[in-house]
Amino acid sequence: MKTTLNIILDTSIFVNPDSRTYFGNTPTKAFSNFLDQIDGNKQINCYIPPSIYEELSKFLDKLPEPNKTILINKKPPSSYQTPVPAMLVYEFIEEMRLRINKGLRIAEKYTRKGLNAPIPAKDERNEELIKTLRQEYRIALREGIIDSKEDFDLVLLAKELNAYLATSDLGLVKWAQKLGITCINALELKALII
Amino acid sequence: MKTTLNIILDTSIFVNPDSRTYFGNTPTKAFSNFLDQIDGNKQINCYIPPSIYEELSKFLDKLPEPNKTILINKKPPSSYQTPVPAMLVYEFIEEMRLRINKGLRIAEKYTRKGLNAPIPAKDERNEELIKTLRQEYRIALREGIIDSKEDFDLVLLAKELNAYLATSDLGLVKWAQKLGITCINALELKALII
Repeated sequence: MKTTLNIILDTSIFVNPDSRTYFGNTPTKAFSNFLDQIDGNKQINCYIPPSIYEELSKFLDKLPEPNKTILINKKPPSSYQTPVPAMLVYEFIEEMRLRINKGLRIAEKYTRKGLNAPIPAKDERNEELIKTLRQEYRIALREGIIDSKEDFDLVLLAKELNAYLATSDLGLVKWAQKLGITCINALELKALII
Repeated sequence: MKTTLNIILDTSIFVNPDSRTYFGNTPTKAFSNFLDQIDGNKQINCYIPPSIYEELSKFLDKLPEPNKTILINKKPPSSYQTPVPAMLVYEFIEEMRLRINKGLRIAEKYTRKGLNAPIPAKDERNEELIKTLRQEYRIALREGIIDSKEDFDLVLLAKELNAYLATSDLGLVKWAQKLGITCINALELKALII
């Protein structure tokens, strides 16, 4: 007899345009169809940390009925009890140090671009410069790293429950794998629940 | 009978201009005098993680004799064994998120300053602008947080050995205290070894 499988669900599965198509065209439909598909399935237990459930709710036109939403366990991780290996913190500190340096190089580059801009300020071209600065900075400092408490909730809960983490966020996958967590994408999740 | 006390030494104790005066006028003299003072002291055991010892060595004109340097145990923390509470990681992630946002605001401010600068680029005033950007960014993203593996070595070793952490770095104190570590400053360290 196979044991039941615990799966932690990330928002990205239902919201990311590439992922959600496996379940529905919109986040609302994707989530609703997913719930219909796991209804009665005794092989898997689905979990969403409350912080992620709140995040997901913002993408939905309306929440499914309670007899459906109850199919997913909204369990928070035991943050005050679960330890993490010190090595993870080392890696995180080192990664942030490199990214912070990169952020400064970007800030310098755009300050110089500002200084060398031919046209006086306050016109459209200058707002364009601020916009590209924001994009470049966000990619350099945010992409591919756990940058929110919500993300860490997912990783910690997966660790605690020895569960699979279903996500389309590659940054999350990278850090979850450091803790020995099995990650699956939307396509694999779909295969699991059929 | 009192038990012996373990003390972890940070570079700042011997290098920081305010701290080192308790032991000597220069880093070299401060460290050398400190070693003389602990020689024969059976009440305390001093430790420096190898990474910090290397850092300290760069500030010294010459290393004291081996019969003196051996008085300090160059023990690394057991990074692969020691766990840290998940809550510390949450706090670190949240703190970095706020600081990264602050860094972007600073980058935007200086880009706008560049755009609004009256004189064409490449003159002294403009290099001054880059210089103040660097200072402001570093303070916003680096001060008051554990921003290097060396800092984390200190905290982790203090935790592992249930030791006091002797440091003048207030950022380090803040994060060490989250792990229940007793921190002492140079003045208190001096009082302890007499």
